[in-house]
Amino acid sequence: MKINCSKNALSEALGNVSRAVATKTTLPALEGILIKAHGSSVSLTAYDLELGISTEVEAAVAEEGDIVLSAKLLLDMVRRMPTERVQIVSDEKGYTLISGGVTEFNIIGIPAEDYPELPEVSGGEQVSLDALTLKSMINQTIFSVAVTDTRPVQTGSLFELDENTINIVSVDGFRLAMRRERLQNGKVMRFIVPAKTLSEVSKLIGEDEVKVNIYVGRKHIIFDVDGYKVISRLLEGDFLDYKNAIPEGGTSRVRVSVRSFGGCVERASLLITDRLKSPIRCVFEQDVVKISCITTIGKAYDEVACKNDGAKVEIGFNNKFLLDALRACDTDEVFLEMSGPLSPMKILPPEGDSFLFLVLPVRIKSENA
Amino acid sequence: MKINCSKNALSEALGNVSRAVATKTTLPALEGILIKAHGSSVSLTAYDLELGISTEVEAAVAEEGDIVLSAKLLLDMVRRMPTERVQIVSDEKGYTLISGGVTEFNIIGIPAEDYPELPEVSGGEQVSLDALTLKSMINQTIFSVAVTDTRPVQTGSLFELDENTINIVSVDGFRLAMRRERLQNGKVMRFIVPAKTLSEVSKLIGEDEVKVNIYVGRKHIIFDVDGYKVISRLLEGDFLDYKNAIPEGGTSRVRVSVRSFGGCVERASLLITDRLKSPIRCVFEQDVVKISCITTIGKAYDEVACKNDGAKVEIGFNNKFLLDALRACDTDEVFLEMSGPLSPMKILPPEGDSFLFLVLPVRIKSENA
Repeated sequence: MKINCSKNALSEALGNVSRAVATKTTLPALEGILIKAHGSSVSLTAYDLELGISTEVEAAVAEEGDIVLSAKLLLDMVRRMPTERVQIVSDEKGYTLISGGVTEFNIIGIPAEDYPELPEVSGGEQVSLDALTLKSMINQTIFSVAVTDTRPVQTGSLFELDENTINIVSVDGFRLAMRRERLQNGKVMRFIVPAKTLSEVSKLIGEDEVKVNIYVGRKHIIFDVDGYKVISRLLEGDFLDYKNAIPEGGTSRVRVSVRSFGGCVERASLLITDRLKSPIRCVFEQDVVKISCITTIGKAYDEVACKNDGAKVEIGFNNKFLLDALRACDTDEVFLEMSGPLSPMKILPPEGDSFLFLVLPVRIKSENA
Repeated sequence: MKINCSKNALSEALGNVSRAVATKTTLPALEGILIKAHGSSVSLTAYDLELGISTEVEAAVAEEGDIVLSAKLLLDMVRRMPTERVQIVSDEKGYTLISGGVTEFNIIGIPAEDYPELPEVSGGEQVSLDALTLKSMINQTIFSVAVTDTRPVQTGSLFELDENTINIVSVDGFRLAMRRERLQNGKVMRFIVPAKTLSEVSKLIGEDEVKVNIYVGRKHIIFDVDGYKVISRLLEGDFLDYKNAIPEGGTSRVRVSVRSFGGCVERASLLITDRLKSPIRCVFEQDVVKISCITTIGKAYDEVACKNDGAKVEIGFNNKFLLDALRACDTDEVFLEMSGPLSPMKILPPEGDSFLFLVLPVRIKSENA
């Protein structure tokens, strides 16, 4: 293999592809990037057996071929090249010269034959989404994904498409996050994508208004993002019947500023540590929310203005779960819907149904009890 | 104690003073900040028994008094207050209310009597320096301070003042860094300041052209930086006779671009890891420096243009020591003075004598041997 390409283009592509390189592996090839030179470009692939990222970089290919090179080493070397173009030459034994001007590195690569095959995705369905919409949908739901794998299916987000909407839903047993968008799709689809995959897809989406093409196979999915193909297995199993988990209506509906309420919860959280857990107590009165927290460190008390259409509610929350949900709100105000201290609280936008966050309460002793 | 002061002023002062708070201590008071309210200001003090930082913040003092409050908690609480002013009220039992508007925290403090006395510095000498000059002098020498305390005196920098110059010198057995400035001082002084103290003094120096007043006692020193007093013990013992350690002249004098040479050394260093140590080999020819490095990862080769007035030298260096010294150079070019592969290399500015870095070589086998 003998190629010559732009240092900046190669460096950017290597940086993005590298995110799928395995960090702890017994298979040395997985710590590398598979480079294949053909025609007028090189393809770069990283794959940790669960998630793969690949892309193409334009190159002058003097000799076609392929090689696997250490991802970290190659990226560091290319990034620091003092020239605008970089040359990579590999012989049949894997000896590889990476050079730019007088700067030369000689390292040894791994034969491409030792690199595992990426799964094929064929005969699946296709759907196309605005990249920025998908990014916001991922970022507003991924925080609710389960981190332990007692129920592996909950370590991913459910994508649910019907004729004219797409829902993304995450749930971890203590909370639920749902984002909804209108989408003229015409297909009914349902699949569960690992959170790690979604996180990488979100990072690959930049500021530009482009489309993301999604190919959904039986066991695998490909996200085609701005020249990068992200391939991942899908999660199998019964996802929570989330529609039944969301309570109808509520006996209290409180309108509150996200930023002010979030600020109160953040401040009260200062008294909570990993060792000193205690709920955040919220008393939703008619026009004020009273927020308090007591631990052995001390007491915190705060207030924020609100508009409560219904009954007064006194309810306790895990501070982290409440804060995560508030931070995912992209509106200035929200409605909080509750039906007493033991039912989950719904967080809804003031208009429309673009998001719904559900936070389970923590049992507290009533101050008046 | 009952005070009311600006949230931003208090928050900034707490942030700076906190850097002297003890992180691991059996004395709980040392994890706190001593707050003393008197007249129209509060003084804030942190002290880890080696280093103390104190400052004053303007305040409306309704009731004089003092208290020690957890540094981390207080800083977090004050920073997140939603108001422009913050009130702190402590009673005789240590119960403390920190409030701003409706936001209230109740915590318990430690009596000021439990806080250790800071050392007094009296009858010492005084010297005044431009803050930005002092900052650059510290930053250009601190990297050479010894990190192990086999020779405790080398964990600090030597300050050496005579009638019209000030030298700061650090040395760790493998390298030496010296910075020199003209200073109409008129006093002959010599003292050794712990590196940790100098690092904090450097951080407290901002962008403004102010003076730093230094009070040097027999055992302690105070740096008065922009309203902050940094008090520290001095190091005692025999500092290396550094003037004798610096070789006279050299048989080769090489003029080279700091950035280009540094770039070559950085690139060659990519093959060196903690487990795979290997020297950087430099061959200084008449108009080119050839830089190379070989480890089991591979080989690196690089070149940079130079102007060598003397003999060809082939010499090996520890990559980190060479890079540290090159990064501390604040000139575009430097002179490298050498007397063969076994003598230390001097790095000097192209004009003047504002810095001198000495790096010991590592023995290498000659390529021609």
